[in-house]
Amino acid sequence: MHYFEDFAVGQKFASPRLRVDAEAITAFAAQFDPQPFHLDEEAARHTMFEGLAASGWHTAALSMRLCVASDFRPAGGIVGIGGELNWVKPVRPGDDLRVEIEVIETRPSRSRSGQGIAKIRVTTLNQRGETVQSFTPILFVDRRPDPR
Amino acid sequence: MHYFEDFAVGQKFASPRLRVDAEAITAFAAQFDPQPFHLDEEAARHTMFEGLAASGWHTAALSMRLCVASDFRPAGGIVGIGGELNWVKPVRPGDDLRVEIEVIETRPSRSRSGQGIAKIRVTTLNQRGETVQSFTPILFVDRRPDPR
Repeated sequence: MHYFEDFAVGQKFASPRLRVDAEAITAFAAQFDPQPFHLDEEAARHTMFEGLAASGWHTAALSMRLCVASDFRPAGGIVGIGGELNWVKPVRPGDDLRVEIEVIETRPSRSRSGQGIAKIRVTTLNQRGETVQSFTPILFVDRRPDPR
Repeated sequence: MHYFEDFAVGQKFASPRLRVDAEAITAFAAQFDPQPFHLDEEAARHTMFEGLAASGWHTAALSMRLCVASDFRPAGGIVGIGGELNWVKPVRPGDDLRVEIEVIETRPSRSRSGQGIAKIRVTTLNQRGETVQSFTPILFVDRRPDPR
């Protein structure tokens, strides 16, 4: 587990891989993003995706799961207030995803004395090393407790 | 259904409401964001959330579902390449969510002649009218087919 004081710009962290199949793509879409290109291979062929593609929110949710499974372990948990989210390429059935996390900024929190702020870049890659999503959130990270 | 030519800055759209219960919060978290403050009321009490809170990605996914259920019906579907995502307040068990959508920019697409670009603001609100999430994505919207 890493306290705010342990983080420095340029540090990198990695996750295991996670395979996405058609069943997971359509199940997520049925619950959260019921549009033809996320629900059915045949219907998806006639859309701008030209085949079944995961909802961007499914890619985002899986990326979060990969972050939690990664060696990035900020004290207090991975708690963000948001950031710039970009879907770069569609995620297709059979893709193997992983995330790379890089610390791009650290600063003390003005409003929360027990925490610091870390800005990170979470890059989600497929099995060909192509970026499918990029997210640069601002996180709150607990400071190391005062030993006194 | 609305083609690109039908959209103008300032237009607003609305969704029905959707109730979020503790079971949905913990089920989503178990699958995508398994951290104590999203998984268990008792464990969550001792975290910065001071009680069970939905994963931001759960709020985002539910907001997408509300967009699909809204009267915002762009031709070709709701297809975005991303944008600025902000979690403003935690979503708690029993919250009733809805989205408001506003068109904030429209312009032709340089790379895709059959489509235009619309930037929208999707505001997710709870039953007290408090903003819990804001997202300003860029969407691709089909142009009206040439009648010739």
